[in-house]
Amino acid sequence: MKVSKFGGTSVANAEQIKKVAAIVKADPTRKFVVVSAPGKRFDADKKVTDLLIELANAALHTENVEEKLQNVVNRYREIAEGLGLDQTICDVIEKDLRTRTLENKSNVELFVDNIKASGEDNNAKLISTYFTSIGMPAQYVNPKTAGLVVNDLPERAQALPEAYDNLSTLRNSSEIIVFPGFFGYTKDGVLRTFERGGSDITGSIVAAAVQAELYENFTDVDSVFCANPRVVNSPAEIEEITYREMRELSYAGFSVFHDEALMPVYKSGIPVCIKNTNNPSAPGTKIVAERKANRRPVTGISADNGFSILYVSKYLMNREIGFGRKLLQILEEEHISYEHTPSGLDDISVIMRSHQLTPEKEVRIIDRVLNELHAEDVHFRHEFSMIVVVGEGMNNSTGLAARAATAISRTGANIEMINQGSSEVSLAFGVHRSNEDKILRELYSEFFAPVTVG
Amino acid sequence: MKVSKFGGTSVANAEQIKKVAAIVKADPTRKFVVVSAPGKRFDADKKVTDLLIELANAALHTENVEEKLQNVVNRYREIAEGLGLDQTICDVIEKDLRTRTLENKSNVELFVDNIKASGEDNNAKLISTYFTSIGMPAQYVNPKTAGLVVNDLPERAQALPEAYDNLSTLRNSSEIIVFPGFFGYTKDGVLRTFERGGSDITGSIVAAAVQAELYENFTDVDSVFCANPRVVNSPAEIEEITYREMRELSYAGFSVFHDEALMPVYKSGIPVCIKNTNNPSAPGTKIVAERKANRRPVTGISADNGFSILYVSKYLMNREIGFGRKLLQILEEEHISYEHTPSGLDDISVIMRSHQLTPEKEVRIIDRVLNELHAEDVHFRHEFSMIVVVGEGMNNSTGLAARAATAISRTGANIEMINQGSSEVSLAFGVHRSNEDKILRELYSEFFAPVTVG
Repeated sequence: MKVSKFGGTSVANAEQIKKVAAIVKADPTRKFVVVSAPGKRFDADKKVTDLLIELANAALHTENVEEKLQNVVNRYREIAEGLGLDQTICDVIEKDLRTRTLENKSNVELFVDNIKASGEDNNAKLISTYFTSIGMPAQYVNPKTAGLVVNDLPERAQALPEAYDNLSTLRNSSEIIVFPGFFGYTKDGVLRTFERGGSDITGSIVAAAVQAELYENFTDVDSVFCANPRVVNSPAEIEEITYREMRELSYAGFSVFHDEALMPVYKSGIPVCIKNTNNPSAPGTKIVAERKANRRPVTGISADNGFSILYVSKYLMNREIGFGRKLLQILEEEHISYEHTPSGLDDISVIMRSHQLTPEKEVRIIDRVLNELHAEDVHFRHEFSMIVVVGEGMNNSTGLAARAATAISRTGANIEMINQGSSEVSLAFGVHRSNEDKILRELYSEFFAPVTVG
Repeated sequence: MKVSKFGGTSVANAEQIKKVAAIVKADPTRKFVVVSAPGKRFDADKKVTDLLIELANAALHTENVEEKLQNVVNRYREIAEGLGLDQTICDVIEKDLRTRTLENKSNVELFVDNIKASGEDNNAKLISTYFTSIGMPAQYVNPKTAGLVVNDLPERAQALPEAYDNLSTLRNSSEIIVFPGFFGYTKDGVLRTFERGGSDITGSIVAAAVQAELYENFTDVDSVFCANPRVVNSPAEIEEITYREMRELSYAGFSVFHDEALMPVYKSGIPVCIKNTNNPSAPGTKIVAERKANRRPVTGISADNGFSILYVSKYLMNREIGFGRKLLQILEEEHISYEHTPSGLDDISVIMRSHQLTPEKEVRIIDRVLNELHAEDVHFRHEFSMIVVVGEGMNNSTGLAARAATAISRTGANIEMINQGSSEVSLAFGVHRSNEDKILRELYSEFFAPVTVG
């Protein structure tokens, strides 16, 4: 039994939804279909979710509500017509939207969430209607009825443990289940949406709940590339990757899969396959718990910028029990999370995402470290990039760090930081932002396109 | 004006003390002589300090006191005779020792300290008498009279700020000052000894107090080697090294200089010269605040073993603000200091000295990390070595990490950890204990004896 999730571009119009039907039909084990809201049909297009945000804002300010509502309904109308469905489903959708705009507006966030979530919800209704109309008996399932319960505000929405028990009963359906992504309900029946990438999260929860053999994630690329194709020319495609590798890559620049979304399937050990709705015969990229070692020690290389370094030094620092802990406590009190903390005997650096800093915060942190920890030198440096070389088992690969460092030195760039030793699957380099792209290209050519020496 | 400290082997017998006199005489700016107790004259010999510990134990158990006391006095008697001094000084020493054995024994630690410290104290009396006898007017100065005040128990002894003011008046002496190393007095007049290497500490304090132009540390080696001569064959000698480099090297295997001893001169910016009493014309090794860059990016390579790694992993760890801080807090509560904390996205390793661990502590730490931090995997690994490549400015040296990692990979050994990015003077590798020596040799040959490729 498979759970197949289709992203926004896969359900953007009638033509795409026909592809979805063909994909589901082609494999009778595809019993669960999780859908996003209709996405962009072309680059300049608006997603239905964006139209819904406009509608929600209009409703909050009681202006142009009807126009904005029709913009949304028209998208579904066009899809329904393209799929040969009659007006009934569009009337259902229009009525549903109208009801939502009249809901209680005292909590703006919940009001907007409720309207946004209609994008997935109504698309699920439409697609199940279409499936049934072409002889594929399907059933729309509402997350409230199915018991996808989430926690209350103010924490961000996450499925409660009982949600998995509730959803597991869906296994017994004889029809194809069409389930809307992106949202659940609190125990009090209040709709709450997941973070961005929320339909991936729903698919992952459903897959874990029904103990699927595979969680298929249909999108618009054939597979995950082993390096950013905007920097590296035609990078290789990844056939198989472990959860751990995927997670390390997602750290920097690999946005195919929202890493929190992997959690439920990761915990249940259910493999994931990323596939292309527009080219379903391509094998795609499979995410698994364990994989066989292959020829290449490196699975992928990611790069991301926007990092800052806090440098602290003090003579005999390493004799002071608690120094590092106190430093991290100061950062915690400033609500700053950090990435790495390389250290010497008398100095420690803390690497963090720059967006968490402001000039005022920097001054405050420097003052506290000087006054409370009696450090001798404290300063921030900015404009750093992290480059992460990822591969299962690379911690046992003699010479891999040497190859990576040598490749970087060929670019003439300086390595500001190396972090190896904890993760069994990654080796991280800190470099100056200006060197990021050339280093990524050089590392790619070192590990994926070895030059034959004549 | 120079402060010259002579270690135990430099003052072990009459012949050595004559060398000391010649060295002091050769340079009229050598106005302050800090001395250790007489050390070993040959490998199987006992240091006077060891004889004094035997005497203290005998006095505590009131047995063989006279025999143990004569063992000590005889060492001084032999020296005095060899230097052509009459009995007077030996009578002074014998009387002093006898008084000490009769002191209050209610605090065993202080009683033993008082007897141990007589080794340096009486040697200073003897050496000043000898200097004067050969026409070098000298004055023994007692640390209590001079005001070398230290803090009270239970903290380990450290000079108080006013000690520097008190000692600064010694500048005005027209005679050579002979000062005993190793101890000071609390404000209540109680004698307390410094940690091991304590005469180095006294010399450093005196040098800082009198604002010496140089602190000379006479020992029995021509200079500091750039790698351990017991592992590397005839390693190169270091001519000049910065405090920071010396400190990083002292971390692992470089025991020439006790690193806490450097603190007073480091703070005052006074250079240190390590010289050989048996070969005073050799230039020695100079420790300075800053040095000119030379041809070699690496100044020294040190290696030490006895490290353990605590490995902790948890999916989405890097999303949890405070995870690292809480982990360090658990270790702090177990009184464990750590060396490095390399981290991946979902894992962190803590590298620490193994001697701090017991099987019970390990179980307790693992339990707490599992239960309080909800980690998925927590375990200890042992038998690691740290190899530290040290050189001022190496953080700006493109390709240096690559050269080091490549050299290690040539040995076929795996690199368990790399830490670069905070210290501007060091690059640390964690390796398995069994690979330590061969890696040290390979790194030495990479950076100090480059092979010409034909």
